[in-house]
Amino acid sequence: MMLVDGQPQDVVSALDRGLLYGDGLFETVRFVGAVAPLWSRHMQRLARSCERLRLPIPDPGLLWREAQAVSGGLAHAVLRITLTRGVGERGYAMPAAARVTRIVAAFPVPAPDATLYRDGVRLHLCGTRLAEQPRLAGIKHLNRLEQVLARAEWNDPAVAEGLLCDACGNVISATAANLFAVLDGVPVTPALERCGVAGVLRAELLEALPRVEVRDLPLHECLQAGELFLSSSVRGILPVQAVGTKMFAPGPVARAMQAHWRGLGFPMEQA
Amino acid sequence: MMLVDGQPQDVVSALDRGLLYGDGLFETVRFVGAVAPLWSRHMQRLARSCERLRLPIPDPGLLWREAQAVSGGLAHAVLRITLTRGVGERGYAMPAAARVTRIVAAFPVPAPDATLYRDGVRLHLCGTRLAEQPRLAGIKHLNRLEQVLARAEWNDPAVAEGLLCDACGNVISATAANLFAVLDGVPVTPALERCGVAGVLRAELLEALPRVEVRDLPLHECLQAGELFLSSSVRGILPVQAVGTKMFAPGPVARAMQAHWRGLGFPMEQA
Repeated sequence: MMLVDGQPQDVVSALDRGLLYGDGLFETVRFVGAVAPLWSRHMQRLARSCERLRLPIPDPGLLWREAQAVSGGLAHAVLRITLTRGVGERGYAMPAAARVTRIVAAFPVPAPDATLYRDGVRLHLCGTRLAEQPRLAGIKHLNRLEQVLARAEWNDPAVAEGLLCDACGNVISATAANLFAVLDGVPVTPALERCGVAGVLRAELLEALPRVEVRDLPLHECLQAGELFLSSSVRGILPVQAVGTKMFAPGPVARAMQAHWRGLGFPMEQA
Repeated sequence: MMLVDGQPQDVVSALDRGLLYGDGLFETVRFVGAVAPLWSRHMQRLARSCERLRLPIPDPGLLWREAQAVSGGLAHAVLRITLTRGVGERGYAMPAAARVTRIVAAFPVPAPDATLYRDGVRLHLCGTRLAEQPRLAGIKHLNRLEQVLARAEWNDPAVAEGLLCDACGNVISATAANLFAVLDGVPVTPALERCGVAGVLRAELLEALPRVEVRDLPLHECLQAGELFLSSSVRGILPVQAVGTKMFAPGPVARAMQAHWRGLGFPMEQA
């Protein structure tokens, strides 16, 4: 089900700036019944991102009511909240009084493959590099062609994700998840000041982990990690089994973070 | 007037990948009555860009008929053709059989200010830098948040455009036009292998100019140019009068290219 500006409909204006220019942002929120354990973090990121893109911040109470309305009846839902700068005159200039378009849509969560949580996922090492744009880095905005091109690099269904680097060869993330590498026992996750999306579960883990480093992570160093895992507010914690032909085994930090994810109220999908 | 997939309507699915991810591209085509002097160049760029984004190439004959249908009755129209990867499953992966969404819309051209063509336009030097992404460079794709942020840096109506550099300090373009600098009598336009949009009028000028260089153009060199001008397939040739406080005078190359634009069949908007 879907609401556009609070109304049950499934279309937007063909002149919406979200379509014309990708001028907007989104959140994808995992629901367990009527509960969204990371809701407040999603609302925090949404507000900060709106400020950076000069979009008015929506009322979280209104979003919550709309989220409940569209996800009602689904035992496990992913909610997508999309905000755009609405319809404006032709041209890049922001309308003087933008009337934001607000889309709230719920999708059923596909049945998870428990073996991926137990044994880990395989990653393709993407040739597509993320461009460095500090003004957009961290924001879950609607300009996602890089991720589309990166995801199109493989079609082996046994490969769940792709590893993305910047032009300098630093690992940034997967196409739709953040990444943690455990190096000499210390979890490290890439700095996202120049590119990448600052994930909501990543923010949660940065507080949950007793020790963690946020810094540049060269690919060669990442591939020497004792363990690698992905974080996604939709999919949870996924250990990495392989990057190309380089193998990894799920380790204790990934297991602890899976337990943390479960403790937040998400289901125990891993074996 | 507007056609979506050939039908008179003004909405698209709220699940269109053009909106979800900016997964698509566009052309803006200037019409003079029923004539579009640069039509074939627009179709060439559209086809090449579709190949790079793995979108099926639309039938130019169909686009021409739809363009005529929506612009009929307008003496001066700007046509916007938008193609997206259509509606797909949630996630970045391209649908196995994408059904492209095709939007063809016409807008009246605002009455031009002849003094801008005679005396030149003022440019703001943008603080926003264009990110380097060779996989997307040159394409007029739907990921245009950089241009939106750059255009939001000024609101003085006397400033018509913004000058955009890459992170290395090379000039790339204006926010919605290409740029030529005349250095020691030789026109130079920035190389667009790493960022920027390869404009259709720029391509026309590269063939029309008896001598021209395409190369990196550092900002400090650009600001020492004997003349500067912008090219836009919608607005034509605009001499640059100032970049910030640095002044320029319209020169003979800009005047010759204005005459060339007029010779293509566009109106004589300059004094």
